[in-house]
Amino acid sequence: MISLADVYHVVEATVPLYVVMIIAYISVKWWKLFTPDQCAGINKFVAKYSIPLLSFQVISTNNPYKMNLKLILADLLQKLIAFLVLTAVTKVSSRGDLNWIITGISLSTLPNTLILGLPLLTAMYGDEAAVLLSQIIVLQSLIWYNLLLFLFELSATKGAAPVTPALEAPEIPQQAQTKEEEEVKVEVARIRTARKTKTMLILLTVGKNFIRNPNTHATSIGLIWASIHYKWGITMPEIVEQSIIIISNGGIGMAMFSLGLFMASRVSIIACGKRMAVVAMGMKFLMGPALMALSSTAVGLRGKVFREAIVQAALPQGIVPFVFAKEYDINPDILSTGVIFGILISVPIALGYYFLLAL
Amino acid sequence: MISLADVYHVVEATVPLYVVMIIAYISVKWWKLFTPDQCAGINKFVAKYSIPLLSFQVISTNNPYKMNLKLILADLLQKLIAFLVLTAVTKVSSRGDLNWIITGISLSTLPNTLILGLPLLTAMYGDEAAVLLSQIIVLQSLIWYNLLLFLFELSATKGAAPVTPALEAPEIPQQAQTKEEEEVKVEVARIRTARKTKTMLILLTVGKNFIRNPNTHATSIGLIWASIHYKWGITMPEIVEQSIIIISNGGIGMAMFSLGLFMASRVSIIACGKRMAVVAMGMKFLMGPALMALSSTAVGLRGKVFREAIVQAALPQGIVPFVFAKEYDINPDILSTGVIFGILISVPIALGYYFLLAL
Repeated sequence: MISLADVYHVVEATVPLYVVMIIAYISVKWWKLFTPDQCAGINKFVAKYSIPLLSFQVISTNNPYKMNLKLILADLLQKLIAFLVLTAVTKVSSRGDLNWIITGISLSTLPNTLILGLPLLTAMYGDEAAVLLSQIIVLQSLIWYNLLLFLFELSATKGAAPVTPALEAPEIPQQAQTKEEEEVKVEVARIRTARKTKTMLILLTVGKNFIRNPNTHATSIGLIWASIHYKWGITMPEIVEQSIIIISNGGIGMAMFSLGLFMASRVSIIACGKRMAVVAMGMKFLMGPALMALSSTAVGLRGKVFREAIVQAALPQGIVPFVFAKEYDINPDILSTGVIFGILISVPIALGYYFLLAL
Repeated sequence: MISLADVYHVVEATVPLYVVMIIAYISVKWWKLFTPDQCAGINKFVAKYSIPLLSFQVISTNNPYKMNLKLILADLLQKLIAFLVLTAVTKVSSRGDLNWIITGISLSTLPNTLILGLPLLTAMYGDEAAVLLSQIIVLQSLIWYNLLLFLFELSATKGAAPVTPALEAPEIPQQAQTKEEEEVKVEVARIRTARKTKTMLILLTVGKNFIRNPNTHATSIGLIWASIHYKWGITMPEIVEQSIIIISNGGIGMAMFSLGLFMASRVSIIACGKRMAVVAMGMKFLMGPALMALSSTAVGLRGKVFREAIVQAALPQGIVPFVFAKEYDINPDILSTGVIFGILISVPIALGYYFLLAL
């Protein structure tokens, strides 16, 4: 059973995060301390320096040779099931299209592991939880965010140049004359080439985004360094380590401050309307953990790791998917609600799961 | 004797500070990542949140009942001698006026103790040095910065309404008639009243600035808390402490980043010209430590504390006096050079003194 002391321990670890967020919110909404452009400056600092260096620090101190394969498998399975379920739903639904699949995946399978997850899970399950979580962070930064970006690009390209009948491979008539046959063959070849070019273009854009994103670099270098460090026992020079720590140390605080600024910049906390918010929260806090429970059971995760896998899936929605959604203008209001309202109700919900799983 | 390992230890502690500063500088000068307004936003965050909370953390963990009275006396004496010497010099010099006294005091007696001093002195002399330094930080924030502000206000008021002969007490003629005598008395009374009003106005402005400055609040509350904590052993609730630490943790990094942004915003690192820069550096790195050595010897400081007192006096110029100088437009270029160029040459100079004092 969980004692009141345990609950207090979790509250103790999360209240400071909220305090920082609220101070940022008040600084803008009441005190008018920062202009929108100044907020953008702080957010840029957080996105380009604080978060990447924090990611690096988390990942570079995680032993990649001791990855929990079952956890990774469960994570992979959760995303796959979510994709299949969402695709099935959109096929039968009237509104369904690729955009809704993307939004659904963002909501249900990509939680805020780095900023909220680390302090929360460490408070609940101790330092070991941070080790497991950092493995999920590696997958998120290196694989899932890039696949998500790929889907966003796909949707954008589809929107710009919808798949016209001309692009579908035409059926070759049975009694075609030689000349007609030739023409059809040329047409087919063209369509093939056109599709390749399109795929190449999408991959190029995803690749460009991948290279541009400092978080990708931080995560990759972190993983490479961890591979070297834990294989050959080479340690980082103190100067390099301290240079990183001096910024990453304030990372979580700065990120929460940035979240508060973001909250203040939105007209409403529930930007997408109440009905949609309920659906979004259902996908986030019920569907996400349920899918994780399903896939964790399927791969045979048990005990503490099982519980940790589910609680992390019940964390509020991550910020990166919101940033993408805003960039591609695909349901950004839903994602904004997912981030902000999600954070506000995250602690009671995480505690709820924590209790439930401890029974 | 100091070993090479000691030197490396100091370099190791300071290089990360420079790395952060250089990254900020490059971000603006080369990458154009932040607009001037965005830089202002980051600087505001540092000035209103990072630095005050860092000050609070340093001061609230310093035992005010174990202050080193000799050190405080030496600090006080150094400022007094500097004031007297500078006043004497300005009296005989052609350019001399109150403005030069203010600039001289800023340069020679108000070093950057919080941001550069703490890591540098801790690396040189261990954690004890941080304890001593935090006492000097308390004095700086609560007394010296406010006295400096008083001088700035005095100068501004003098500039706006120069002391006219009418304001000087007129001599009363020996053979005055009764009526004339009366008139003179009235005039004298008026001049007295006028002076009082002026002093009141200056004090009001200083007081207003004092109240507005979040650093003053942080320092005062820090001192009050430390007085309570070290008297009755009451500890801060973990939630409050963590809420402060989550921001103050990144304080030094953010402050260095802000310094780098500031450097990038200036047209030249040596804004006041080479000749004046040499004079300024002489006042900062020779006069300041020399006066501290004099006053420390006078009050009988010895051993490690003596050495620490001198090395801290040889730290580059503090940022707060520059902010004031810019606000009142009194030699801001000299102070800017003092901050930027001072930081660039601070480590070799501090190491020089460190060696010299270890002989």
